[in-house]
Amino acid sequence: MKHPFVVRGLLLLAVLVAGPVHAQPLPSWREGPVRSALIEFVAAVTQPGAPGFVPPPERIAVFDNDGTLWAEQPMYVQAAFALDRVKALAPQHPEWKTQQPFAAALAGDAKALAASGEKGIVELVMATHAGTTSDEFAQIVSDWIASAKHPRFGRPYTELAYQPMLELLSYLRENGFETYIVSGGGIEFMRPWSERVYGIPPQQVIGSSIATEFRLRPDGTPELMRLPKVDFIDDKGGKPVGIHRFIGRRPLLAFGNSDGDQQMLEWTAAGSGRRFLGLVHHTDAAREWAYDRKSHVGQLDKALDEANARGWTVVDMKRDWKRVFAFD
Amino acid sequence: MKHPFVVRGLLLLAVLVAGPVHAQPLPSWREGPVRSALIEFVAAVTQPGAPGFVPPPERIAVFDNDGTLWAEQPMYVQAAFALDRVKALAPQHPEWKTQQPFAAALAGDAKALAASGEKGIVELVMATHAGTTSDEFAQIVSDWIASAKHPRFGRPYTELAYQPMLELLSYLRENGFETYIVSGGGIEFMRPWSERVYGIPPQQVIGSSIATEFRLRPDGTPELMRLPKVDFIDDKGGKPVGIHRFIGRRPLLAFGNSDGDQQMLEWTAAGSGRRFLGLVHHTDAAREWAYDRKSHVGQLDKALDEANARGWTVVDMKRDWKRVFAFD
Repeated sequence: MKHPFVVRGLLLLAVLVAGPVHAQPLPSWREGPVRSALIEFVAAVTQPGAPGFVPPPERIAVFDNDGTLWAEQPMYVQAAFALDRVKALAPQHPEWKTQQPFAAALAGDAKALAASGEKGIVELVMATHAGTTSDEFAQIVSDWIASAKHPRFGRPYTELAYQPMLELLSYLRENGFETYIVSGGGIEFMRPWSERVYGIPPQQVIGSSIATEFRLRPDGTPELMRLPKVDFIDDKGGKPVGIHRFIGRRPLLAFGNSDGDQQMLEWTAAGSGRRFLGLVHHTDAAREWAYDRKSHVGQLDKALDEANARGWTVVDMKRDWKRVFAFD
Repeated sequence: MKHPFVVRGLLLLAVLVAGPVHAQPLPSWREGPVRSALIEFVAAVTQPGAPGFVPPPERIAVFDNDGTLWAEQPMYVQAAFALDRVKALAPQHPEWKTQQPFAAALAGDAKALAASGEKGIVELVMATHAGTTSDEFAQIVSDWIASAKHPRFGRPYTELAYQPMLELLSYLRENGFETYIVSGGGIEFMRPWSERVYGIPPQQVIGSSIATEFRLRPDGTPELMRLPKVDFIDDKGGKPVGIHRFIGRRPLLAFGNSDGDQQMLEWTAAGSGRRFLGLVHHTDAAREWAYDRKSHVGQLDKALDEANARGWTVVDMKRDWKRVFAFD
């Protein structure tokens, strides 16, 4: 085995077998306590023989989506989708011109829209998200996400994924984690693009849903019809419920950015052994936005208090991220 | 690269890299059209560059559980669990001695139990499946499955998994498939042992469920409480709904054994490209049971007609399986 050809061949093969070499994990994270805590945590749970070792099928990592993996300002991306859908469907609904919340949506009147309350929002969601088959809805979302542009950055919304979080998702997967989205947003709104943008396949996307019904068309073709009825709200206490329903095991790592993620982090933290709890704190008005306790979108108040009290990791976007977006 | 050491070293490494060599896939399946159809199908969708190639994250295979992966006679295993739970809980419920359906369950009176109808069954399920935390329930199931014995075979129920189906699950996973259970049975009843018995982790188990609620105990510990309320029935038209909700993509392969699986097979069959539809037909009274169109458990009637009409693969247990159970 001392023959240089053999040695060189084996080294080459060892490299090929081991996969690409990452000289520097998490390159868009600044050196500092947060980046170090992430790397140290992954090492602690993946080192074979170490006391904290967790076998791969149990390495579950969960991430909120809006404000954690991509931008959620000036409004949730799905809200922008719903408003665009109202406009697209308006010609078939002349009554919307005078009927709230549709008239407000068509006029772009945020104040009147807010005045329609939760009832109005649900009406808007049902009118724009139900009444199609699941396949048709996936196509509608795919077409919209391919063409819509973010109002501030003038780029497709999917380019507003946070580069450091994309690196974290990859880093976890390279270390044997399954990475899940656990979002208050609509499950069917995320699945058409989650694999392409985040490397997260549909089967690892958990979200809010409306009811669907299995039907046979007159020609015998089966379809799933989307009904105007809330099925599941994957927010606050719904997040641990959704995690338990879809995954059936407690995550090792959970990342959120708002009070809607507090229960998910509490549920994760209460597992035995090492856990990692992270919050993205939006502190960078120049590159992204700065908001927390008083924001209408992505309010971070009680969860921030709990993070500080319990020593959860708070990512200061301005301090901890070299880049926010890939295009920075 | 002609040096014999190099060549031998490379060959050895190629074998190590490729993993264990399986001279003979599906050894408990008899040579014949069913075994050939399975092997041919897997080759068709996994051969890189072939017209039918499907990339790994889309290789989804779904299996019913009761009667497809393990025995369901003389009653569903979960029904045996529920009856044992009634007995275990009876000392805390003296009123059950005279109250149906509990009195019938305690007396083992199948006729009176049947007379209590669906309402009675739901009452029995709620009394035995709700009112604990999710963690407590998992422990109860684990303890029961470790000690309960099948009445005919005198062995743990988990030994009544079908050896040919275990081989099929492994064969599919070795070929890049994700294997899911899609069962009318309770999701929380299967998850505590599905990984050990089938190699299917909790996150790939879909089933019927009752509602759970996130709560904080007075000491601040979070828990998920199981409520006496049906959440989702994963049977018949519910199976495509469950597949779509949990997986979000259409399976390539679906295997069932009863009319409860018909819609799952229809939904799978309606996808574009090659699909594999399989039904286990219980034809072997000597080694297992023989039943189909008139059985109260696992009735196979309409789905058998559709399988015959549409050319789905029907496994004749007696003809196609060399062994039924590992202990045969």
